Amino acid sequence: MDSMLYVVPVVGVIALLFAFYKATTINKVDAGTDRMKEIASYIEEGAMAFLSREYKTLAIFVVVLFIILAIGIDPLTAVSFLIGAVFSALAGFFGMKVATKANVRTANAAKEGGMNKALNVAFSGGTVMGMSVVGLGLLGIGILYITIGNPAIITGFGLGSSSIALFGRVGGGIYTKAADVGADLVGKVEAGIPEDDPRNPAVIADNVGDNVGDVAGMGADLFESYVGSIISAITLGIVVFETKGALYPLLLSAVGVIASIIGTFFVRAKEGSDPQKSLNMGTLASAVLTVMVAFFLSKSLFNSYQPFIAIVSGLVVGLVVAKITEYYTSGDYKPVQSIADESETGPSTNIIGGLSVGMMSTAWPIIVIAVGILVAFYASGGTTNAAQGLYGIALAAVGMLSTAGMTIAVDAYGPIADNAGGIAEMSELPKEVRIVTDKLDAVGNTTAAVGKGFAIGSAALTALALFASYTQAVGLESIDLTKPTVIAGLLIGGMLPFLFSAITMKAVGKAAFSMIEEVRRQFREIPGLMEGKAKPEYKKCVDISTTAALREMIIPGILAVIAPIATGVILGTEALGGLLAGSLVTGVLMAIFMANAGGAWDNAKKYIEEGNHGGKGSEAHKAAVVGDTVGDPFKDTSGPSINILIKLMTIVALVFAPLFLKFTGLF
Amino acid sequence: MDSMLYVVPVVGVIALLFAFYKATTINKVDAGTDRMKEIASYIEEGAMAFLSREYKTLAIFVVVLFIILAIGIDPLTAVSFLIGAVFSALAGFFGMKVATKANVRTANAAKEGGMNKALNVAFSGGTVMGMSVVGLGLLGIGILYITIGNPAIITGFGLGSSSIALFGRVGGGIYTKAADVGADLVGKVEAGIPEDDPRNPAVIADNVGDNVGDVAGMGADLFESYVGSIISAITLGIVVFETKGALYPLLLSAVGVIASIIGTFFVRAKEGSDPQKSLNMGTLASAVLTVMVAFFLSKSLFNSYQPFIAIVSGLVVGLVVAKITEYYTSGDYKPVQSIADESETGPSTNIIGGLSVGMMSTAWPIIVIAVGILVAFYASGGTTNAAQGLYGIALAAVGMLSTAGMTIAVDAYGPIADNAGGIAEMSELPKEVRIVTDKLDAVGNTTAAVGKGFAIGSAALTALALFASYTQAVGLESIDLTKPTVIAGLLIGGMLPFLFSAITMKAVGKAAFSMIEEVRRQFREIPGLMEGKAKPEYKKCVDISTTAALREMIIPGILAVIAPIATGVILGTEALGGLLAGSLVTGVLMAIFMANAGGAWDNAKKYIEEGNHGGKGSEAHKAAVVGDTVGDPFKDTSGPSINILIKLMTIVALVFAPLFLKFTGLF
Repeated sequence: MDSMLYVVPVVGVIALLFAFYKATTINKVDAGTDRMKEIASYIEEGAMAFLSREYKTLAIFVVVLFIILAIGIDPLTAVSFLIGAVFSALAGFFGMKVATKANVRTANAAKEGGMNKALNVAFSGGTVMGMSVVGLGLLGIGILYITIGNPAIITGFGLGSSSIALFGRVGGGIYTKAADVGADLVGKVEAGIPEDDPRNPAVIADNVGDNVGDVAGMGADLFESYVGSIISAITLGIVVFETKGALYPLLLSAVGVIASIIGTFFVRAKEGSDPQKSLNMGTLASAVLTVMVAFFLSKSLFNSYQPFIAIVSGLVVGLVVAKITEYYTSGDYKPVQSIADESETGPSTNIIGGLSVGMMSTAWPIIVIAVGILVAFYASGGTTNAAQGLYGIALAAVGMLSTAGMTIAVDAYGPIADNAGGIAEMSELPKEVRIVTDKLDAVGNTTAAVGKGFAIGSAALTALALFASYTQAVGLESIDLTKPTVIAGLLIGGMLPFLFSAITMKAVGKAAFSMIEEVRRQFREIPGLMEGKAKPEYKKCVDISTTAALREMIIPGILAVIAPIATGVILGTEALGGLLAGSLVTGVLMAIFMANAGGAWDNAKKYIEEGNHGGKGSEAHKAAVVGDTVGDPFKDTSGPSINILIKLMTIVALVFAPLFLKFTGLF
Repeated sequence: MDSMLYVVPVVGVIALLFAFYKATTINKVDAGTDRMKEIASYIEEGAMAFLSREYKTLAIFVVVLFIILAIGIDPLTAVSFLIGAVFSALAGFFGMKVATKANVRTANAAKEGGMNKALNVAFSGGTVMGMSVVGLGLLGIGILYITIGNPAIITGFGLGSSSIALFGRVGGGIYTKAADVGADLVGKVEAGIPEDDPRNPAVIADNVGDNVGDVAGMGADLFESYVGSIISAITLGIVVFETKGALYPLLLSAVGVIASIIGTFFVRAKEGSDPQKSLNMGTLASAVLTVMVAFFLSKSLFNSYQPFIAIVSGLVVGLVVAKITEYYTSGDYKPVQSIADESETGPSTNIIGGLSVGMMSTAWPIIVIAVGILVAFYASGGTTNAAQGLYGIALAAVGMLSTAGMTIAVDAYGPIADNAGGIAEMSELPKEVRIVTDKLDAVGNTTAAVGKGFAIGSAALTALALFASYTQAVGLESIDLTKPTVIAGLLIGGMLPFLFSAITMKAVGKAAFSMIEEVRRQFREIPGLMEGKAKPEYKKCVDISTTAALREMIIPGILAVIAPIATGVILGTEALGGLLAGSLVTGVLMAIFMANAGGAWDNAKKYIEEGNHGGKGSEAHKAAVVGDTVGDPFKDTSGPSINILIKLMTIVALVFAPLFLKFTGLF
């Protein structure tokens, strides 16, 4: 049976080869006119400059933590951590490298070949991202499991990927939103020039932001989720079923990758057809294939369908949460339309409406996740054997993310199409090109909502599974809420996502403020800029975003590592359990609230722009722009970072468990 | 020793007599010109009409729950519940009756006698409210304890007061903010007329709102906190120390009432002196007196200073949280000033800034509360005897609220002064009058912040103490976070404050929308209104607020009662414990976040109005008005309601404990 394990890294390599093949096909596509190439090179330079400066900053953090782990915990865990960090950085790098190639080629494909070709290029770019993530994930975990085998050490790999993901998400999120808010508020609102207008000094920074935030940040984020879910399943699986407990999630993930590769071939738009349908076909195909194999694997490995039910319950939770997300964030339904209605009485009522929709939207996802947890636990035999039930919860998370290769491809294609639109605008390509890229971008918004549903659902289940692993690692029989230290931990843990959101939102606000000042200055001081006779100084805006992002990502990142360690040492392991549970609860809630409020505001604005309530330029539209701007850091900085935060804190607790056992805590 | 118990209801009666005496002194003050009397009569009529309709609606709820309790739990508990509900309603009624007398007399006193006399009348109004609350509380609990003695039955009294408080807070909060937002957005922003201008059709509804929301709603709220803290201390105290465990919090509360009465004599402003100092003197005097007696009582009853330390730790937590609240919400400090800065770049950055300050402001209060819990627990001997430690936590809450008579008087004086200013404006009194009332109102804003700090701190400790009583009532040895049902409960409980806030904010939004439409209609359709030649139809606006408040308070109120019962029956008592803990965590966080964000936005606007960033009429001011309007439902509807929600749910769980023990839950 053990020889089957070699399938895992091999499939990882296959995924990476497929990514490489897709990347070469993109490179073969023509990059268009000189103007297009020039614009694209600005974006690529800015993006790569940011990434290299970011990674240099992170290198210090990685080295420090490596030394701490090597001395305080165990050298192998430190190595495992290092590999996780490097792989996570690579996933972000590959994704962004190809995205900055694919964007301009998508624009040119839209110009030369229309919808069909453009979708093909953009989706190929997304596929490289998706395959890099799952390929690196399987390769890393596969090799570590085969060579070392001890899940406690493999958890180091998770720590590496999670910490890089958090910094990447926070840094990328601050970068992109500072640029976005700055470009919109001065460009669109004050100067009255359209989005992506080349006269706007922040326009390049804005497009760079889409890459570093929505592509690289998101890539590291999903790499972390993917890896985290597999590691927690391995850890819990070995306890109950020994090797086959680890084999099942590993093989299933490998199957999911193959299914995703097959699924990509279903994505091909015919001229005039709906690209949404084409993407849905691909997603459906890979999901059906995976579920089928999961069924047989469950039977053959365990002679039981229990693990299969757990897997399916995870998939169902993901799909239902995604559907609820769509309901609360799409212009086709009442919540977004009610925000548009409320925009008629000004920005205040628009904001109250959006906040209220965001908070309301937490109810059903939480209930669905809670039911999913209970089903996964009890259907896996949790009644008689709690460990088996917890393994079921971990499998649910693995099930939800098994087709991550496809989910990410569909998700990452959105920002590429968005960027292509920006390049088309800046290169003054014909209007028809922009119509194609807008159509692709609009589809991308819906798929992004679905992706967020999966990200949140899987974060909740993965964090819970990791939490269960933690209790086993520190040998806690129970975490008792009637103890005041646990309540204290619960309160402090619950507070952390609020503090974290405050810090990241404040960072976006500060950076956006500098950006606004700089854009205003350029409009004021550069003669002929508004008339299009002079070029703006793009680089200054890129620098502002870069510097702000790198400076502001440090504190939240360190906080996430320090908080659990300090609690474990001072208040003890049980209080730390309370802290993790508290951050899990408010973290999931805040993540859903912020992501959906942001999405709803965004689409309420788009709904008005479609001609409702007076359309563009009306008072309702102005109010809706305010909401959309508030929603930017909600949905693209703070919200998604919290997803990582809750898992990272749990992994930190898990890795540092041996440390806490040396101390007994003050109480 | 038992004869000392009679002190408690006797002090309750003394407090009520003192309130009655103060009310007669107010009635003796002249109510001013005919125009003033006319305006005041509109406000009084509107307020009383609302209260009587509200109480009629609530009567149905009370009768239904009375029958359920009488049949399902126990007839005495039902009676106890009924008394609690009636007393809570009476506290609101007394407070509002006197507030609607004191407002116009404060305005006239400001006109005739200046600051000194005006403060005297307004503070006397507040004192009636404070003494009614603590008097009714002591009388009710005192008599029930002497005649029945069983804390489980006295908890029914808490259920009565909590449920009326929740409906009162939600209904009053929706009423006041619908009127406020409506009056401001159309009057100040669209029509450009000043606040409290008699031409504004919503102006009477706005002033009625101050009474039904800030006076009656707040009175019922603090009645509930006061009663809840004493009941939880009695329940836990009897377990450990038998009668004297109950005697201590009861006597201490009685002492606090006497100290508060003495404290009121310290509040007298000299002409030209700062009214703030005068109020601080009164608060300090009553706190010092109470602490001194607590020290001797602790020694003589228990021959130990442990209970005294718990009392003091509660008081310290209350003071520190109040100070932190002031830091985050006062224009004198950086957070509010930073929001004012961010208003320069428009409403979006103002909103992002306010949300971020609100979230940030949760960190220290949570840490202080967590430390307070640990100190109260361990200083009371929780290490060797957990029940004793939990009793310490309950005593901390009692300590925090022991001088509630004074705190409420200081708190309730604010809206009276606010109303006086409105009446002065509408009656076209000389500018000097408005200056006096504005000064008093400004002081009231700071004291309100302090009051909110106490309300939140005491809610957290009281909810926790009630939670401990619940675990004892259902005989749970532990509430284990490693069980999936507990996690499911925790998630759902955590979600409820989000859902609850969404519903109440949505209700304000809807009601404000109708109000805006109506005010716009009147400006459009009533000829000569803007020129001051015709009278607006005040009554229509009053009706809109009344109807909306009564309709929209039902669902959130019922939700708070149904959710814990359903969870207890379906998922069992341990999952219900998880639900209560989850709602405690996110409830306290959301309450702090919303109260402080709202306060910060409000004062950022005032800070700009003082002449900073261009002052009134500047772009920064317009942006700050948006933030202030968003903050209205935050700080005066949703935020304070959550405080009650978390306690009400715990009391429901406690009262219905016998029911859950009959069922075992599905899992």
